[in-house]
Amino acid sequence: MSTLTRAGSALALAALALALGATSATADPLTGTGDAARNDGDQTQALRDAVRDPGARNVILLIGDGMGDSEITVARNYLVGAAGELPGIDALPVTGQYTTYSLHADDELYGLPDYTPDSAATGTAWATGTKSYDGAISVDLDGADLPSLLEIANANGLRTGDVSTAEIQDATPAVQVASVTSRRCYGPSTTSTQCPTNALENGGAGSISEQLLDTRADVTLGGGAASFDETAVAGRWAGQTLWQQATDRGYQVVRTAAELAAVTSADAPVLGLFTPGNFPTRFAPAYATAGGGDAAPITCSESPDRLTPDLSLAALTTKAIDLLDSDAENGFFLQVEGASIDKRDHAADACGQIGETQDLDEAVQVALDFAAADGNTLVIVTADHAHTSQIVDATTPGLSISLTTADGAPMLVSYGTAPQGGSQQHTGSQLRVAAYGPGAANVAGLTDQTDTFFTIADALGLERDLASLSADATVTLPESVAPGQPFEIRVAGLAGDKTLSALLQSDPVDLGASDVVDGSAVLTATAPTEVGEHTVTVTGTQTGVSAAATFQVVASSPSATATATATATAEASPTDPAASTAAAVIAGGGGSGNLPGTGAQVLGATLVAAALIALGLLLVRARRIAHAA
Amino acid sequence: MSTLTRAGSALALAALALALGATSATADPLTGTGDAARNDGDQTQALRDAVRDPGARNVILLIGDGMGDSEITVARNYLVGAAGELPGIDALPVTGQYTTYSLHADDELYGLPDYTPDSAATGTAWATGTKSYDGAISVDLDGADLPSLLEIANANGLRTGDVSTAEIQDATPAVQVASVTSRRCYGPSTTSTQCPTNALENGGAGSISEQLLDTRADVTLGGGAASFDETAVAGRWAGQTLWQQATDRGYQVVRTAAELAAVTSADAPVLGLFTPGNFPTRFAPAYATAGGGDAAPITCSESPDRLTPDLSLAALTTKAIDLLDSDAENGFFLQVEGASIDKRDHAADACGQIGETQDLDEAVQVALDFAAADGNTLVIVTADHAHTSQIVDATTPGLSISLTTADGAPMLVSYGTAPQGGSQQHTGSQLRVAAYGPGAANVAGLTDQTDTFFTIADALGLERDLASLSADATVTLPESVAPGQPFEIRVAGLAGDKTLSALLQSDPVDLGASDVVDGSAVLTATAPTEVGEHTVTVTGTQTGVSAAATFQVVASSPSATATATATATAEASPTDPAASTAAAVIAGGGGSGNLPGTGAQVLGATLVAAALIALGLLLVRARRIAHAA
Repeated sequence: MSTLTRAGSALALAALALALGATSATADPLTGTGDAARNDGDQTQALRDAVRDPGARNVILLIGDGMGDSEITVARNYLVGAAGELPGIDALPVTGQYTTYSLHADDELYGLPDYTPDSAATGTAWATGTKSYDGAISVDLDGADLPSLLEIANANGLRTGDVSTAEIQDATPAVQVASVTSRRCYGPSTTSTQCPTNALENGGAGSISEQLLDTRADVTLGGGAASFDETAVAGRWAGQTLWQQATDRGYQVVRTAAELAAVTSADAPVLGLFTPGNFPTRFAPAYATAGGGDAAPITCSESPDRLTPDLSLAALTTKAIDLLDSDAENGFFLQVEGASIDKRDHAADACGQIGETQDLDEAVQVALDFAAADGNTLVIVTADHAHTSQIVDATTPGLSISLTTADGAPMLVSYGTAPQGGSQQHTGSQLRVAAYGPGAANVAGLTDQTDTFFTIADALGLERDLASLSADATVTLPESVAPGQPFEIRVAGLAGDKTLSALLQSDPVDLGASDVVDGSAVLTATAPTEVGEHTVTVTGTQTGVSAAATFQVVASSPSATATATATATAEASPTDPAASTAAAVIAGGGGSGNLPGTGAQVLGATLVAAALIALGLLLVRARRIAHAA
Repeated sequence: MSTLTRAGSALALAALALALGATSATADPLTGTGDAARNDGDQTQALRDAVRDPGARNVILLIGDGMGDSEITVARNYLVGAAGELPGIDALPVTGQYTTYSLHADDELYGLPDYTPDSAATGTAWATGTKSYDGAISVDLDGADLPSLLEIANANGLRTGDVSTAEIQDATPAVQVASVTSRRCYGPSTTSTQCPTNALENGGAGSISEQLLDTRADVTLGGGAASFDETAVAGRWAGQTLWQQATDRGYQVVRTAAELAAVTSADAPVLGLFTPGNFPTRFAPAYATAGGGDAAPITCSESPDRLTPDLSLAALTTKAIDLLDSDAENGFFLQVEGASIDKRDHAADACGQIGETQDLDEAVQVALDFAAADGNTLVIVTADHAHTSQIVDATTPGLSISLTTADGAPMLVSYGTAPQGGSQQHTGSQLRVAAYGPGAANVAGLTDQTDTFFTIADALGLERDLASLSADATVTLPESVAPGQPFEIRVAGLAGDKTLSALLQSDPVDLGASDVVDGSAVLTATAPTEVGEHTVTVTGTQTGVSAAATFQVVASSPSATATATATATAEASPTDPAASTAAAVIAGGGGSGNLPGTGAQVLGATLVAAALIALGLLLVRARRIAHAA
């Protein structure tokens, strides 16, 4: 290997020169052979060490919205100089490129690639493994709901988090917590008009904000508080604001840095919304203009509107990891978005996009530091789509601006896809995707954005068939209840669902709906007055899997609560034909459920489950607060 | 892992649909979960297998000039569809990004990064490991010559090749064979005015074309024949055309496909120049225009001017590999450039750049096929700098054009960095760099373009100190010569040099210059009339290393040719203080050379070398034809 000065010492010199305010012309750190090289000797062993088998406890996915390779380079040049290294983004050892195209949904081009995607389709791609149309929030090209990585992770018992500097209903954070046909459907009002099939009043799952509350990510942090001021127009919380609903459903709602600091556990889900809309940016805007590249180079300044440092993306990432990494049994999946790289690029605001890239870079550092210490965390850093900004040599016919970088040299940035005052366009280039940790190899070479879904799901070993996760659902009822008396319906094992509905079938009487937390729920119902056997059927809203049990209404009854000696009959069956592969039937104890011939193995598991039920061991893992409607 | 249909079958369906002319709307191959994914299960073992220790026999470096990630994506979308894979470029398993900035040479910004580089500075970066200024051809920021990878490989005994679709004097191919202060110095005429310090008449090494002939790559194929019509204005071939010079120096000069086909060996270097200027492009031009994106989408058509298929870049790459891979002892280094991706991007010619990318892709396939079969070849595919073209959603204020892709969908391409008729600008984004084979790990993560130099040199195990490669130089002379009689000066071991000059020091008389081939040369000189001891000193032009030997002029002499019984005195010493570490002194046999106390080890090697000389075993490896001036 060379005896020449290589990257390490050259960069140290450069850093020193900058720190001392020396001109680089004096330091001359890049002019010699090897001065600009970044590798410190052969990297074969280093890459070997970085290629680790999948099987991660945790995954942290960090998205720079609109952070194409050009945007990364603009930020690097400005912040640390061309020969420098962004300490987060540039530090990941395994890298590749991925394609980001979406699909056309209109008749004549239906199903064909749309080469310049939006953030909704791209988010849907990695959140669900499915290409869809621009505007789609985790629905397929026909508008059918798709479960997201976060929802699947949640169903698999992992803790989950969703952090963004945008409105939390913005496309990138939304794809993990909701499925709606249009990204505009933040709250009940827009959903009624823009996403009628999703509206609660039409039997849908509701707006992004309402579905977010269904999804129960353990930690949700960002902007977008305004939508929570809206009032539900249908469903269990009709007439109440979404704030009231969140509190009612057991969320720890926080609105300020101080309130967030006071949160010490995510045993109840944390909903922290700190701004009405998007977060203000780190840097004050500096807009490219027609001919602007000919003006003297500028430097960026901190925005006076920037949130307090303990609400920076890095601080929120730190807080989210702290809260999520506290379950001795299970790991977590966390998505973090630096949202306004894109938004400032749209606005041709060079300083804006640079500051937001720095914010994301600091969040990446947090993630990498955690992952390095933890040793069992996959970190992926990428973007959703490329964007407009380009580094050029001379003032362009479009918009341009010149900045003085950390090198002390001028950098000319061009925005040429929209006129002044217009919104600069996304671009369709393949993008850098980078990873660290177990399973990182799956980003190398050329992949598609949808591969990210499988990379993460497989690294975490997630069961992606939500119906199968609910297939072992059990309902536990008291053996007997006096007529007209209240009794509890205890549901367990409905892990693939977020909510359920219950029915007293002998009548039938709608017993209402309930949140499902960790697969469990407890509902209180009133026994019929008619003496004899009655059946309660519960159905998971998301999977369509049902479970049933029977109880006796007797004139003189023991306690109306379930006891260890209560005999339960539990049955899970699919009502959705599509979920038929996940069908399973469970019956146990001395109940009257039938035992279809599903084979000895299923029967064995069934009897074990039944025994556990009888021992009261399958009751709610009371980590979170369930709401009984 | 998923049971869903993954990429393989979905793409097969898509290909089938396209082959059948079916609409993709019918085939619908991309709409389902996993349909667009590219990975076929976990890639951990595949990447492990791709990470191999450095220590390659051969390296093939393929450069798509101006082939940024956006240009790759444009070509992929058009040629094989968004979900498709370019069979060459996209197939490399280890990928990363690298920075491409050059340096400012002007006083006020001297040594600081120039964020939008040209092809000369970027080529210099990977060819020499050194950042330099735009326009620099393998010279540093102060204009000092730097040895290139190709030259170093040659000096290390490897075979070498330089292939381009451009004029062979264009920046990218030129950086491997010449060092001049301006990329414009193709031939003697421009060199006299644009690169006066390089001009032969001023004691320089001459124009790019003349230095190309010095460098003696085993295979040089491309355009740029026009410059060889020029006449040398100084030096050994003053007054002759460069064609005459090439022939005189032992080149196999070919100008047509048929002539190239007739070449069966590179034992004499092959110079194939097939067009006066750059190669014509594969596709006929289709220019973006103001508002052009609103017009109906077009498809590209083959250019009627395209060269015959046996002069395609892939065909030339095949021929070069065939010729280079025929030395049982040593491997090769080959650079291949697809030059006109850049040139057509400058012209806002979407079809032009796509066709050139396809041409490069086919060359990459050739390289990968060879490397896979060979098992000991590192292939690197990258670009020199990013470029203008962007994929957008809507017609831009600048130039745009819509194309119908292989998907059957419209793709809008924008060029926004120059007005219509102007030259679209390079851009400064980091770039994809991809590798296959031993040492591939060194492109992963973030590197700089200059790292590529070390990656390749280290993979091949090259000694980069050229002076040390000439340090064992020997001069063999007859013991005695009759006055005024001709005698031979045999030089060996001057491996770090391309040419030498010889001096009869007793007079002194300039004995002229000679090419050095594989470190060896044979000159014929005339003995002085003065009886007694005389000294011949030869000096390598590139390293400055000298070697000397003495002979006797006697009235009655034996044969004037060297014989096995001749006694030789050989000495190598540096004349350049910078080469002092490479100094070595060799003296042997019964000659009168002095033996400085350089230690027993050197003495031992010296005596072995002397014995070999005495046995006539260190004579020219007559693989190529040497010219004695």
